[in-house]
Amino acid sequence: MVGGGQGAFIGGVHRIAAAIDQKIDLVCGAFSSTPEKSKASGKELLIPDDRCYGTFEEMIQTEASLPTDQRMDFVSIVTPNHMHFAPAKLALETGFHVLSDKPATFDLQQSKDLKGIIEASGKLYGLTHNYTGYPMVKQARDFVKDGEFGEIRKIVVEYPQGWLATKLEAEGAKQAEWRTDPKRSGAAGCMGDIGTHAENLAEYITGLQIKELLADLTAFVPGRQLDDDGNVLLRFENGAKGVLHASQISVGAENNLNIRVYGEKGGLEWHQVEPNTLLVHRLGKPTEVWRTGNDYVGENAAHASRTPFGHPEGYLEAFANIYKNFADHILAVEAGETPDAKVTDYPKIDDGIRGMAFINAVVTSSANGAAWTPIEA
Amino acid sequence: MVGGGQGAFIGGVHRIAAAIDQKIDLVCGAFSSTPEKSKASGKELLIPDDRCYGTFEEMIQTEASLPTDQRMDFVSIVTPNHMHFAPAKLALETGFHVLSDKPATFDLQQSKDLKGIIEASGKLYGLTHNYTGYPMVKQARDFVKDGEFGEIRKIVVEYPQGWLATKLEAEGAKQAEWRTDPKRSGAAGCMGDIGTHAENLAEYITGLQIKELLADLTAFVPGRQLDDDGNVLLRFENGAKGVLHASQISVGAENNLNIRVYGEKGGLEWHQVEPNTLLVHRLGKPTEVWRTGNDYVGENAAHASRTPFGHPEGYLEAFANIYKNFADHILAVEAGETPDAKVTDYPKIDDGIRGMAFINAVVTSSANGAAWTPIEA
Amino acid sequence: MVGGGQGAFIGGVHRIAAAIDQKIDLVCGAFSSTPEKSKASGKELLIPDDRCYGTFEEMIQTEASLPTDQRMDFVSIVTPNHMHFAPAKLALETGFHVLSDKPATFDLQQSKDLKGIIEASGKLYGLTHNYTGYPMVKQARDFVKDGEFGEIRKIVVEYPQGWLATKLEAEGAKQAEWRTDPKRSGAAGCMGDIGTHAENLAEYITGLQIKELLADLTAFVPGRQLDDDGNVLLRFENGAKGVLHASQISVGAENNLNIRVYGEKGGLEWHQVEPNTLLVHRLGKPTEVWRTGNDYVGENAAHASRTPFGHPEGYLEAFANIYKNFADHILAVEAGETPDAKVTDYPKIDDGIRGMAFINAVVTSSANGAAWTPIEA
Amino acid sequence: MVGGGQGAFIGGVHRIAAAIDQKIDLVCGAFSSTPEKSKASGKELLIPDDRCYGTFEEMIQTEASLPTDQRMDFVSIVTPNHMHFAPAKLALETGFHVLSDKPATFDLQQSKDLKGIIEASGKLYGLTHNYTGYPMVKQARDFVKDGEFGEIRKIVVEYPQGWLATKLEAEGAKQAEWRTDPKRSGAAGCMGDIGTHAENLAEYITGLQIKELLADLTAFVPGRQLDDDGNVLLRFENGAKGVLHASQISVGAENNLNIRVYGEKGGLEWHQVEPNTLLVHRLGKPTEVWRTGNDYVGENAAHASRTPFGHPEGYLEAFANIYKNFADHILAVEAGETPDAKVTDYPKIDDGIRGMAFINAVVTSSANGAAWTPIEA
Repeated sequence: MVGGGQGAFIGGVHRIAAAIDQKIDLVCGAFSSTPEKSKASGKELLIPDDRCYGTFEEMIQTEASLPTDQRMDFVSIVTPNHMHFAPAKLALETGFHVLSDKPATFDLQQSKDLKGIIEASGKLYGLTHNYTGYPMVKQARDFVKDGEFGEIRKIVVEYPQGWLATKLEAEGAKQAEWRTDPKRSGAAGCMGDIGTHAENLAEYITGLQIKELLADLTAFVPGRQLDDDGNVLLRFENGAKGVLHASQISVGAENNLNIRVYGEKGGLEWHQVEPNTLLVHRLGKPTEVWRTGNDYVGENAAHASRTPFGHPEGYLEAFANIYKNFADHILAVEAGETPDAKVTDYPKIDDGIRGMAFINAVVTSSANGAAWTPIEA
Repeated sequence: MVGGGQGAFIGGVHRIAAAIDQKIDLVCGAFSSTPEKSKASGKELLIPDDRCYGTFEEMIQTEASLPTDQRMDFVSIVTPNHMHFAPAKLALETGFHVLSDKPATFDLQQSKDLKGIIEASGKLYGLTHNYTGYPMVKQARDFVKDGEFGEIRKIVVEYPQGWLATKLEAEGAKQAEWRTDPKRSGAAGCMGDIGTHAENLAEYITGLQIKELLADLTAFVPGRQLDDDGNVLLRFENGAKGVLHASQISVGAENNLNIRVYGEKGGLEWHQVEPNTLLVHRLGKPTEVWRTGNDYVGENAAHASRTPFGHPEGYLEAFANIYKNFADHILAVEAGETPDAKVTDYPKIDDGIRGMAFINAVVTSSANGAAWTPIEA
Repeated sequence: MVGGGQGAFIGGVHRIAAAIDQKIDLVCGAFSSTPEKSKASGKELLIPDDRCYGTFEEMIQTEASLPTDQRMDFVSIVTPNHMHFAPAKLALETGFHVLSDKPATFDLQQSKDLKGIIEASGKLYGLTHNYTGYPMVKQARDFVKDGEFGEIRKIVVEYPQGWLATKLEAEGAKQAEWRTDPKRSGAAGCMGDIGTHAENLAEYITGLQIKELLADLTAFVPGRQLDDDGNVLLRFENGAKGVLHASQISVGAENNLNIRVYGEKGGLEWHQVEPNTLLVHRLGKPTEVWRTGNDYVGENAAHASRTPFGHPEGYLEAFANIYKNFADHILAVEAGETPDAKVTDYPKIDDGIRGMAFINAVVTSSANGAAWTPIEA
Repeated sequence: MVGGGQGAFIGGVHRIAAAIDQKIDLVCGAFSSTPEKSKASGKELLIPDDRCYGTFEEMIQTEASLPTDQRMDFVSIVTPNHMHFAPAKLALETGFHVLSDKPATFDLQQSKDLKGIIEASGKLYGLTHNYTGYPMVKQARDFVKDGEFGEIRKIVVEYPQGWLATKLEAEGAKQAEWRTDPKRSGAAGCMGDIGTHAENLAEYITGLQIKELLADLTAFVPGRQLDDDGNVLLRFENGAKGVLHASQISVGAENNLNIRVYGEKGGLEWHQVEPNTLLVHRLGKPTEVWRTGNDYVGENAAHASRTPFGHPEGYLEAFANIYKNFADHILAVEAGETPDAKVTDYPKIDDGIRGMAFINAVVTSSANGAAWTPIEA
């Protein structure tokens, strides 16, 4: 693991997600850019001292020098955005698979470069766009793919949060600091952090790409350097239209990612805060309430679920689905087997490139007064 | 009453709304542009034959010739959009108060003309933007007005419907026919019919005017002449941003008008399909569930409510609040009294002009590729 | 109208319910047991002075002496419970139809006597067990009747309120005073006031009669003379089991009447506070959300609805459905026609007798330490 | 681990719950009463062959013979009910801590015996009444304990399921087979399996003990040997009254455990299917929506939570809270430290005895025609 030392948030999430299915052990790490903090963090995590490294370079190189059956199997990257590319590149080039937190890289060009590096390395690369790990999201995608709703016409996807409604970054909140800092976060704030999740969810469920968009981004909190709110209109490749809005100043909103998709014959609605429910609409029929874990769900949703209906699964389980699939993909590849399509269903570099291109497009569009802007990916 | 004959929808709603509070009796009508149908409709409504008129001109002139205590007190106009202006004008100029279905007129110029006519007449004019009649909408407005949320930053207002997802107007559905016909409906379809309700609700609750907007309107159903879906970005006079979208092709959506408003210190959420609940957010506090009819609601919400908490009030009661206030306003005026502010709280010609200007702006913006367009009203 | 003067609650509800469909005019009343208050109340309601009567006897006798086409058509009784029987008896015996608030009478014997009086009079008698007037309640009944759920096994029906959690009757609250006074309310408090609604709803929807029950009633508020909470186990005639509980001390509960019914093959759930939604369960299938006003609902639900889907109907409309049917029944009878089954679907004296027998049974059972007690009706 | 071999359900849940917080490794097991199946199951779980035991006796004795730092630290028991006591007894007497699935034992006497064994052993014993592991359940308990609602008056607790609405045990469903078999499940079916969860939740949240109860149990599915539905009235030690019902034939219900608690000044409502929400009622105030992970929750809820608000936590996380606390309790005890009260907050043998006594009481009461029966524990 690279990153995720004391005080971090997402590192702990990754560790739980990796642990849940008992397929992955955390064996080493460069948990902080400060060697002492890295050591201290590793100690807390019960990692032997000699495998707590001071830098990711040291970790990757030392591990590579261990006998095959003793070295780490893959690298998890859980650093802030500006530190995703370098460890991913080094790990891949040194022969390790990589599972990275999103966004894939700091900017679009890096992510395109990374794609070349991945292809050259022959190694696996996964990206934790975790919300697509939910069983009902997979069910939603299958509905669209199976043509249950006919041609898709309209998509509304939202990610409102309220936690940055005040200037938290001025009060020593680490999570707020780097997310509002263009040097660590990238060209966009709210749109990069959570707008990309909305974009990824919409494209994942519908199987449609956003062709062009226009965006009106705002930094509402005085003195904030990056957008904390953004409203976007979407046009999809098939002619569907859409609305995407994300916010970090919507007081009272938690992580209210949600999506509605409407086609000629039906539609659906899903909310991350109650993720085990999928509302399914059909022309002239009562709305159906699809629920995780029931016998009637499809095989993709079933594969992504661990408990029977009515025993709610949450964010960590959805996150774990990426780790589980990534681990099974590695096992299959190393066994020389062709993995099942259910196993290879996790976000990869192409999702990362789409995300970076989306960020570029919304920032460009907003700078140009909300002009229509293509997504170049 | 002008319009509202056999086969109409909104006429019946107006009649119930007028009847609920037992302050208004339906005494005469020109229920159809076809005199025979008007007579037949009137008969069903138990109106004496001699007060079922063949045309609105006949109705207004004949009633005006009756002794003061026998003639109608005001005119309700419930015709399709292209037939709002003429009867309103004649009634006002002949000395009758007018309560009109929305939109106020067929186009913006007419509504500005109507304002002049109203002012010249000295008569009262009301407009049934009925959704602002709900108690919790009034409570919402009071929260904003009282500064409970601080400066408003973001507004999301939606009005999705699904009933026009297929080409209903080709199947003899009267409600669909005139709403999709530019000659009867006006420059916009969905945006005129329900987008204006969303606009009106947002401005009513926040007390803020939309300064400019950009819109992407679509007619998804092949062969349809007017938009059946539209996505709009909003900029308000105080710097707040917003999203407004309305749709008639969102399969499974009923009349899902809803609004979320976020300010510096709090926010709110309200849904028309469950109108007796208002969610209130405050920084760092649990969300509060405000409910119609409780002792803790403010006087404006209390004034708009007829039953105790937990006995749900609906669409007809909200509609009736406009009729009740309009009737009480007439009574006050005729008694030479100054009415309470709670009584004069119903939509008037200025709301109508805003609505027409909103329609103009969205149509113009969309025609110009979603360019920013001011609302000229 | 008998009762419903100044300060009353349910009288106003009856008047609105009667007015909504414009079939019924309030023409006279004995609005209070105090003649002066009756007159004053009538004046406010715009009733001519000579038809504001000092007593119900005066009203019934004077009206009976008027020419047929000038006298009232039926009597509405909206007094406290102890004043239901006498005016109903006199009105029926004098030749007027009667629509009475529930419970039918003060005690069981009276209600059995009343049945005899009704039968002897040949007049119509209706009872405003208003919750069965909701469209989705009728849909629920049709599901059960049509065998969609197979044999019914279990019924859970609840009516929690919280408004009497403190000793409101000691603070001058008129509604609380008579409801907690055994001389005016009857043998039971909470169970008579709202427990009977739960009983009526369960029997109406399932078409099954409660055979025996056991009850544990409590007066939680110190000094209160009648139960303010009660928990009841039910056994139905077909072997189904059930739970019924009602409460007036459940802080935060409004009028949360709700019911769940489970059969061999399916089940349903309905809540009065959101009455336009009916959840329908079927073995191994996603739950369906049935909503008032959609084309897919059955004819009984459609008959009970006035607005399209998504325009919520509430308590007053459900109440009005009883008035509308009662008026149409009178019209049919007076025209010598056989009314449609949809028209005669309103509560009658047999529902009233069931309610009184239910009250007797719960009070008896509770007094006997929650012993099984048959419902004798 | 004892039990939890191939085809089992709850064993997998325990393993995930143990793994989530990375404090516990599964090191050995007797996964099945059939030695070959035990070995095969262990192999799948990546347990070394020599630590996959054929019987729990072999496991406990062999492990006890290993050096202290190589043997297992505690035993998890995840067998059907009739196999809980023996391995717990042996493990405790051999010097191992025990974490057992519920119910503690097959019958009440065994659980009382077990208490003696635990006390004699000086070892820790935990019981996975997992629903009390939810953060909002802990918040609920704190509200009551802190007197926020005043004296508690009424408790409604439900656990409806629908999965046994048909005779699943005749179709080879392993989970249904043992649960409906008195020899493996015990004296009660539904009431033992899930009724005890309801009882435990009610006593945990309110801190009140049920003094006596009456019950009406039914086996609705023809040929079923144990109850699949039960309705219970409760009387608590402080005079509060309650209703408890549980069912496995409520078609459409998933694991809908829920509770409502009402006191003099307020109340609460919680549902397991959406566990991160707690509704809080206060006299005369809007209901508050308390949500897991917010800064405003108390320290007990915060301690039981792993992700920020809006990232839903579910069943597995609640289950894991028991494992985490149990592990931390062991660590504290072995380090000679006094553990924090938050750490020792997990179900223990007294909860198990209450559960067994509850089962006894409901079965006895129902056999006696729903007579009041004390809980003897």
